[in-house]
Amino acid sequence: MAEIVRVVVDAMGGDNAPVEPVKGAVEAVKEKKEIHVILTGQKEVIEKELAKYPDYPTDRIEIVHASEVIETAEPPVNAIRKKKDSSIVVGLNMVKKKEADAFVSSGSTGAVLVGGQVIVGRSKGVERPPLAPLLPTLEGVSLLIDCGANVDARPSHLVQFAKMGSIYMEHVVGIKNPKVAIVNNGAEEEKGNALVKETFPLLKACKDINFIGSIEAREIPMGYADVIVCEAFVGNVILKLYEGVGAAMMKKIKGGMMKNLRSKIGALLVKPALKETLKDFDASEHGGAPLLGLKGLVVKTHGSAKAVEIRHAIFQCEQFTKQEINVKIAERILESKNQEPAKEQED
Amino acid sequence: MAEIVRVVVDAMGGDNAPVEPVKGAVEAVKEKKEIHVILTGQKEVIEKELAKYPDYPTDRIEIVHASEVIETAEPPVNAIRKKKDSSIVVGLNMVKKKEADAFVSSGSTGAVLVGGQVIVGRSKGVERPPLAPLLPTLEGVSLLIDCGANVDARPSHLVQFAKMGSIYMEHVVGIKNPKVAIVNNGAEEEKGNALVKETFPLLKACKDINFIGSIEAREIPMGYADVIVCEAFVGNVILKLYEGVGAAMMKKIKGGMMKNLRSKIGALLVKPALKETLKDFDASEHGGAPLLGLKGLVVKTHGSAKAVEIRHAIFQCEQFTKQEINVKIAERILESKNQEPAKEQED
Repeated sequence: MAEIVRVVVDAMGGDNAPVEPVKGAVEAVKEKKEIHVILTGQKEVIEKELAKYPDYPTDRIEIVHASEVIETAEPPVNAIRKKKDSSIVVGLNMVKKKEADAFVSSGSTGAVLVGGQVIVGRSKGVERPPLAPLLPTLEGVSLLIDCGANVDARPSHLVQFAKMGSIYMEHVVGIKNPKVAIVNNGAEEEKGNALVKETFPLLKACKDINFIGSIEAREIPMGYADVIVCEAFVGNVILKLYEGVGAAMMKKIKGGMMKNLRSKIGALLVKPALKETLKDFDASEHGGAPLLGLKGLVVKTHGSAKAVEIRHAIFQCEQFTKQEINVKIAERILESKNQEPAKEQED
Repeated sequence: MAEIVRVVVDAMGGDNAPVEPVKGAVEAVKEKKEIHVILTGQKEVIEKELAKYPDYPTDRIEIVHASEVIETAEPPVNAIRKKKDSSIVVGLNMVKKKEADAFVSSGSTGAVLVGGQVIVGRSKGVERPPLAPLLPTLEGVSLLIDCGANVDARPSHLVQFAKMGSIYMEHVVGIKNPKVAIVNNGAEEEKGNALVKETFPLLKACKDINFIGSIEAREIPMGYADVIVCEAFVGNVILKLYEGVGAAMMKKIKGGMMKNLRSKIGALLVKPALKETLKDFDASEHGGAPLLGLKGLVVKTHGSAKAVEIRHAIFQCEQFTKQEINVKIAERILESKNQEPAKEQED
């Protein structure tokens, strides 16, 4: 177990860079002594930003210069290949060379996903590394796995997602024997598309996970399962609709509260309590989405992430590293492979 | 154009039967003179329920006895086959025999879908009849097509959904030149699973729809598109997550408002305005989900539908029938078939 956890933070990534990533890094090192942050990006820009904070432990924030910036709109594969001196590529290379334990970025999701796979590389036996954000629910949080860029998954991918997700929820989020469910269009056993029907019995047969069966989308926000397994296209729909419905409802509610004098006064009285409650339902409080199954940890935070999310993502990296999640995942995947009848393993 | 629209209402279907379906029927005939309702189900039960309403036009509500009831948990195919004297089968047979224009039920979704296809039958050329609920958005409503029971659709199915959905939105909901979008995991042209990638150029080539490209799930509640095309598994996830996130947020908000004395007073002041605003965001205000592409109209309302939803569904049927949507759909599908190069047409 490393005493110091070294987290690279992409200082150039996201809508609020460099302000928020730098702020999040400063807050993180101030709050926890075991954290060392490496900010990658344009040195002058980062230095100027850091100069705003007079009292932080300067020995635990380091800058590694990277002259280039990958824009969100750039085709990811090209960007990773060509911009060798970008904050993302430089940061991921540090993880690859074990100069850092983890990498956090609010930059281009595509570039982070591609870079994570190409530069850091998959753990032995992992068929497809899933992107797994935490969703807020009425009970706490659930891990939605997979929301990555590779769609049309195979049943064996989903089985690995279930295993990796269980390890993450147990050791990073602290939920004992996490409940695993597969997203389905009905609760009955005969429901499902071809992929779900094929995957269901495989999950049922896994002895190393706590599989509780199908979950309908309606039940996801209720927190009935801790690990929500699905193919990435469906995961993407779930993640984005969660945000969309939430945002639309908040807009409606705000509009309703501003309707007349009576409601405006009511709004003033109700606001503090409401804000407090809805904070729990805000994904940014829970850090970023880990890309699991790699040889190092890569965490993707929202493009619009603020310092609070960056800080939480850094703490997530600390927990992940201390708990040696990658080792646990590699062992579990290898174990499963050994128990399986021989068959093709790669994508 | 028929002067009187005859709508069969399943008096035994749903959690609130017979109370709410009967109430909805009474309200509908009271509000609109052109509507004639036929209530199917156990005669005595319905008569007792109707006796509660002293002043409605009794000549426009008729009872057709059906001794059996299909339960929600019954396997649909079996239920339709065996319970020939159920309210659903009796009602659908009336539509088939042109004794009624439309059928509305809050009962078993599976039985209504199966019965609609098997008893009423598909329109000529329609490959798969989609179930298409209206989703509330910040701009009004959008049609989500398909949310039916048949998953793993083919590209040609999605193209037909787009055409049928456009006709519905234009002539029933009254949106001129409705914007059609396909649900995707990104806005970029190269995004999508195999189905979406294959369907996208087909939709782009359709001259009879206003195709605007991909829509990410986040944008659905914003109302950026009028017709949201997707495969039924994804549609099911969208529909149910919409409900789930909404319900979870309302629970959170209510909890927040009851937090302390200050917020409780605020809640009292803000409640009426809030209720009014959130009404627009309530799916039940918009009636039920039509099963399109059949030889008659079948509308599925929520299992928990109240009279207001039944009433709106009946009005939907009136509009649908007066606008001769089925004729329009049949013509459009036939037109498209004629323009296509010859190929296999059936499921």
